[in-house]
Amino acid sequence: MDHGGRLRRLQRSFGGQFDAVLISHLPNIRYLCGFTGSAAALAVTDNKAVFFSDGRYATQAAAEVQDARVVIGRKPPLLQAAEWLKRKFSRQQRITIGVEGEHLTIASQRQLKAVLPSGARLRESPPYIEQARIVKDQEEIACLRDAVQLGASLFDVALKTIRPGVKEVEVAAEMEYAARRSGADAMSFETIIASGTRSALPHGRASQAAIPAGAFVVCDFGVILAGYCSDMTRTVFVGNPPKEARNLYDAVREAQQAAVDAVRPGVTVDEVDQAARKLLKKSGLDRYFTHSTGHGVGLEIHEAPRVAAGKREVLHPGTVITIEPGVYIPEKWGVRIEDIVVVTETGCEVLTPTTKDLITL
Amino acid sequence: MDHGGRLRRLQRSFGGQFDAVLISHLPNIRYLCGFTGSAAALAVTDNKAVFFSDGRYATQAAAEVQDARVVIGRKPPLLQAAEWLKRKFSRQQRITIGVEGEHLTIASQRQLKAVLPSGARLRESPPYIEQARIVKDQEEIACLRDAVQLGASLFDVALKTIRPGVKEVEVAAEMEYAARRSGADAMSFETIIASGTRSALPHGRASQAAIPAGAFVVCDFGVILAGYCSDMTRTVFVGNPPKEARNLYDAVREAQQAAVDAVRPGVTVDEVDQAARKLLKKSGLDRYFTHSTGHGVGLEIHEAPRVAAGKREVLHPGTVITIEPGVYIPEKWGVRIEDIVVVTETGCEVLTPTTKDLITL
Repeated sequence: MDHGGRLRRLQRSFGGQFDAVLISHLPNIRYLCGFTGSAAALAVTDNKAVFFSDGRYATQAAAEVQDARVVIGRKPPLLQAAEWLKRKFSRQQRITIGVEGEHLTIASQRQLKAVLPSGARLRESPPYIEQARIVKDQEEIACLRDAVQLGASLFDVALKTIRPGVKEVEVAAEMEYAARRSGADAMSFETIIASGTRSALPHGRASQAAIPAGAFVVCDFGVILAGYCSDMTRTVFVGNPPKEARNLYDAVREAQQAAVDAVRPGVTVDEVDQAARKLLKKSGLDRYFTHSTGHGVGLEIHEAPRVAAGKREVLHPGTVITIEPGVYIPEKWGVRIEDIVVVTETGCEVLTPTTKDLITL
Repeated sequence: MDHGGRLRRLQRSFGGQFDAVLISHLPNIRYLCGFTGSAAALAVTDNKAVFFSDGRYATQAAAEVQDARVVIGRKPPLLQAAEWLKRKFSRQQRITIGVEGEHLTIASQRQLKAVLPSGARLRESPPYIEQARIVKDQEEIACLRDAVQLGASLFDVALKTIRPGVKEVEVAAEMEYAARRSGADAMSFETIIASGTRSALPHGRASQAAIPAGAFVVCDFGVILAGYCSDMTRTVFVGNPPKEARNLYDAVREAQQAAVDAVRPGVTVDEVDQAARKLLKKSGLDRYFTHSTGHGVGLEIHEAPRVAAGKREVLHPGTVITIEPGVYIPEKWGVRIEDIVVVTETGCEVLTPTTKDLITL
């Protein structure tokens, strides 16, 4: 990964506004210097990057961290970083340090202030790194492609397992086992297997419920592979679907396709969201589509941009988002279909290789 | 669970100091009112508790939330709570609202301030709920006992799987599969299977490395069952252990036992930590024991108290902690042994049922 380039772009972004920025969000640290552990801080000045961790990570940091000096200390990494900044800027009366407002807690802010000299001002920095992460480079897209492929292979496992009477968690167990055996670091979120009336819950984590006959099963799942997340949803029908179920499925499928077709450079995420919503409006189903159309995905399962109504972010080539409209009829059933797409120069490429035809089991 | 009692104890704790406290940390919300979802805020005044979530959780909140009024809105739960507080205290010139400094981000603090009237002061509250959670009631201890039992059953799976040439992740896969099939909500942290020289990494997540012969394998793992976490470590030897390996194992085992024996009401966590450290000092191994002796465990895998050098928290009956000294010889090997214990009236009870004799495979 191009850690050096990322670091230089960050330095250019904050140059003149901050004397240093202090990075505490682990996915951002991984993005900038490659460290995959769970305790770290990164201090970046206009011409330096220093990485801090503790003794547990001495070996790992030495092996992983790129383009930053590694310091291993006994104190929490954030406080080590603050002490380093204090020494580094000891001759300056006033310094301004950028911190990550979406991630830094007020207790950490208080602890930082206690270490830093009184002339140091902590200011919430713009989300420079989250913004940079929106556009993926070729190496990242290759990682996402691999994760999506591995994730999609789990759907075959689900298809072999789903049948009336099997518990939702048993389906999840088989999928997660296959993921681990195939080299996934972990699942990217809690596997959703939501059958029968539970399919009407947008967040129906696999439960002890037995899958009924004559019902939809929403399968929403993903893996983390080499740090990158996959995310996909398919909805299958157990038994012979009545016309009403087919119509519902077709409506969601058309809405999902319309949103995919709307993705191209220069379009706003709002327009993508509206493309799905407009289709559902035709069949009066839009009021049952109660969440946004998608989200960015990469080192985190949910990252910028949100693909939601009213959001004005413009899509650029290299942005990777999910497209996942769903319709949920309370107490009855629900359908969601989700792909991962990457914005290309002329439109988008759907990374998810799996059919969207209604599968009946 | 005694949600009403917990809420009343919180109200007594902050009475007079805060007009209201705003709870955003999900395990604390679960502790106070039973909600298990991923988006919520709880506003507590001296005589009221109001729970906020969004449309995805309407059904679940209605079913789960105890002893608090449930409000479902479109905005983020924390902002809904702020708007409610604004209305509730509209006649008061000045109000002081306690927030959770260890959990609230500075971005959320900024958003809260934008909603609340100018006479409202946000102040970091003491960790009332984290403190209350240190002492578990009988119902919680029963939950922990069940989680520990289920967790321990996974060690048998590990013993059946570990052999030279098998990848560490394959062992983790089998254990995690068994956990899911046995009803675990999830693993309580990333499964550590660290073999050969990797056993010298205190945080050696299961990797693609093949388990070598003539080596230690550190197995550190846990499940979440009904919300409560288990955590245990056993270290086995693959092959016939040389005397040096047996000596190392015995030293860690004795240190672990000494720390367990030190646990009783009135003792500080520092004394428990020192009990383990003192034993290792005898054999000159204390400098390779690079982390603290243990931590509280319950709704979270790491919670108060930390069982660490210099910490003065006193143990009380009902406190549940891990005891997990380890010795790590860099580039060579490592051993860690970990139990969960509950402080009783006279000493402690070890919940982990598994032998600490050295198992060779």
